[in-house]
Amino acid sequence: MAKDEGDLASNYQGAFDGHLPFGQRPALLIVDFVMAYLDPASPLYAGVEDALASNERLLAAARAASVPVLFTNVEYAPGGADGGVFYRKVPALKAFDRGSPLGAFPPSLTPRDGELVVTKQYASAFFGTTLASTLTALDVDTVLITGLSTSGCVRATALDACQHGFLPFVVREACGDRHQAPHEANLFDLQAKYAEVIAEDQAIARLAALG
Amino acid sequence: MAKDEGDLASNYQGAFDGHLPFGQRPALLIVDFVMAYLDPASPLYAGVEDALASNERLLAAARAASVPVLFTNVEYAPGGADGGVFYRKVPALKAFDRGSPLGAFPPSLTPRDGELVVTKQYASAFFGTTLASTLTALDVDTVLITGLSTSGCVRATALDACQHGFLPFVVREACGDRHQAPHEANLFDLQAKYAEVIAEDQAIARLAALG
Amino acid sequence: MAKDEGDLASNYQGAFDGHLPFGQRPALLIVDFVMAYLDPASPLYAGVEDALASNERLLAAARAASVPVLFTNVEYAPGGADGGVFYRKVPALKAFDRGSPLGAFPPSLTPRDGELVVTKQYASAFFGTTLASTLTALDVDTVLITGLSTSGCVRATALDACQHGFLPFVVREACGDRHQAPHEANLFDLQAKYAEVIAEDQAIARLAALG
Amino acid sequence: MAKDEGDLASNYQGAFDGHLPFGQRPALLIVDFVMAYLDPASPLYAGVEDALASNERLLAAARAASVPVLFTNVEYAPGGADGGVFYRKVPALKAFDRGSPLGAFPPSLTPRDGELVVTKQYASAFFGTTLASTLTALDVDTVLITGLSTSGCVRATALDACQHGFLPFVVREACGDRHQAPHEANLFDLQAKYAEVIAEDQAIARLAALG
Repeated sequence: MAKDEGDLASNYQGAFDGHLPFGQRPALLIVDFVMAYLDPASPLYAGVEDALASNERLLAAARAASVPVLFTNVEYAPGGADGGVFYRKVPALKAFDRGSPLGAFPPSLTPRDGELVVTKQYASAFFGTTLASTLTALDVDTVLITGLSTSGCVRATALDACQHGFLPFVVREACGDRHQAPHEANLFDLQAKYAEVIAEDQAIARLAALG
Repeated sequence: MAKDEGDLASNYQGAFDGHLPFGQRPALLIVDFVMAYLDPASPLYAGVEDALASNERLLAAARAASVPVLFTNVEYAPGGADGGVFYRKVPALKAFDRGSPLGAFPPSLTPRDGELVVTKQYASAFFGTTLASTLTALDVDTVLITGLSTSGCVRATALDACQHGFLPFVVREACGDRHQAPHEANLFDLQAKYAEVIAEDQAIARLAALG
Repeated sequence: MAKDEGDLASNYQGAFDGHLPFGQRPALLIVDFVMAYLDPASPLYAGVEDALASNERLLAAARAASVPVLFTNVEYAPGGADGGVFYRKVPALKAFDRGSPLGAFPPSLTPRDGELVVTKQYASAFFGTTLASTLTALDVDTVLITGLSTSGCVRATALDACQHGFLPFVVREACGDRHQAPHEANLFDLQAKYAEVIAEDQAIARLAALG
Repeated sequence: MAKDEGDLASNYQGAFDGHLPFGQRPALLIVDFVMAYLDPASPLYAGVEDALASNERLLAAARAASVPVLFTNVEYAPGGADGGVFYRKVPALKAFDRGSPLGAFPPSLTPRDGELVVTKQYASAFFGTTLASTLTALDVDTVLITGLSTSGCVRATALDACQHGFLPFVVREACGDRHQAPHEANLFDLQAKYAEVIAEDQAIARLAALG
């Protein structure tokens, strides 16, 4: 592309600068915040301690507001037959073979009774799961999305939330990635095309306002 | 993220450097190559004339190899009720209201009799369409993906191809975007996580080898 | 099965006699009420004139109540490549090849401006369409389902409404089939497992109560 | 419907008497053959001992032919939040709350290492699961479907197999239901519209021929 494309922000202006309203009945969806990304010995270790702390604060706020909380994790049958092409592409997904300690939630982000765990095999939390049906049956219209990694499962989940008819709000500080470049590039794409990327304090204010 | 993440390529090494094989029964899927991105007067104009030429060559090669060819386009009911949250988020999607000339294929990428057009409302060509069923019923195992835009519908489609169990091969020169930065960032993510990003001449060699 | 199964109603008692509540935000979904089933010369002619009259009354009631109204139809590319296995199985689906007059709506059940047509290729109105996304984005929680045929697209659609998290209410007199036996057998299964089968006057009372 | 519809078989002739070919790469899919239907104390007990014996023979034949074997079961989070509208409609589904012994496979139909279990929450084994992706990634084109119950999960699964582009072959003796009437009515609908209903010995001959 040999073109005069200008800087990115002004290039997108007028075409990809729309906004979505926050709805009436939000849920908090914490994507794949598991030990595989937190254990320095893991091939997927991402150095996302700050995002962990942010999720702890958001989880407390959601619980205080009695907003539905859902967690996702990843689990494969031994050998990954249920992981299909994705499992073949990304050898590091072996970290999620059933029984692996890397698939566990950290103590501070562990589901309580009544909080649902959506177990998935692919990037999007909506793909091959009953998440959309569950959110619809729960009468949710807005999904606060956090978790790991921004360029992988968070983006795929926010895209699918939009496609399925839910208002996706991605919380910037509560997402993380192993490298800053794809983290920022994907937040940029999400804000431009599919979601609202908001700050943690905005998300917490939204939750507090529901009380 | 205050961490020593190093350069991107070496950071991803060992975790996200897997590869997928090219299958036995490919199809060519040309995503949203329509006038909205080619007409300089369109809000979605992307300056993708080089990608157009690349698609013309790939289309000729696929037809010569008698490989199934599928095109996608986008079309909304007046007012966009069938576009849901996506249509609300991206006002520029009005370009695809039914009857808009911006939704038309360019003369050189027009489907022939027997070549299927998949009409979609969302980013992924698999979402809310019968594309996966069609590919399965056609016994396709590999999808050569081209089109517009890299950071939008191409990425969403390649992600979903992987999730649905097809081997996605994205042709670099045959994709395009309105700005180089998201174009490159998304090809990087696709290669790392969901697909093989290959050069046009590799794709043409694959098609020629089927004869 | 050589067992003492008793009569059907008492056999199902206690296991399959649950009920669903009518929700707050219904939509009317008229499935495949097109000329293929109304034209005596069509291979799919079903003799459903009574159901047509019932749909006319329900449509008027839904419009009077300002409830969203959606229609489905069926359309295939020439040759049916987008109909996959279903089109191979049922040769009569050729009636829905693009451009066939059998695919048209009857004058009295024709969508008005602002009423959505969901074009589908398979039995379920949710399969390979954006219907679920549209209903979610419209904030619908309950779907009044009518149309043709009871044992085919109506049942498949009601099943999928339930699976997607919507409350399905099937209107008995507004559905029809080419033979009474599968009509009744499928209404029985739907009431037992997935939906509430209600009478037309109940449906009209529900709509009137919204005003 | 006051019409001269004649007997059912002749009424359907010419419209719904098409056939599908058996493909090249079958899999055996055993739907929900779990203790809830086999334990006389269960509210879902169905008296399907003959179908159990038929599945044992089919399973042995599939293993001998090295055909992929997949089992489904049903499991809900406590309270059934992941069961949505379906769980509200059918109180008997409480039998599948996580940890219930009624959700277990009988000893003679227990998956071996390398045989996949697809855990589902809804009627169709394809709905909200990665089954379609798995079958595609395994290069399967034909699904031999057996299990429980004919009028519930078997029919929903066979319908979805057809919709997803797989050739569905339902094995008559290997399916069962709590009452003969819906069993027969649903096999009739399946044969007419979505699948081939075959006898056990035909299925076993197909498997033997692959050797």
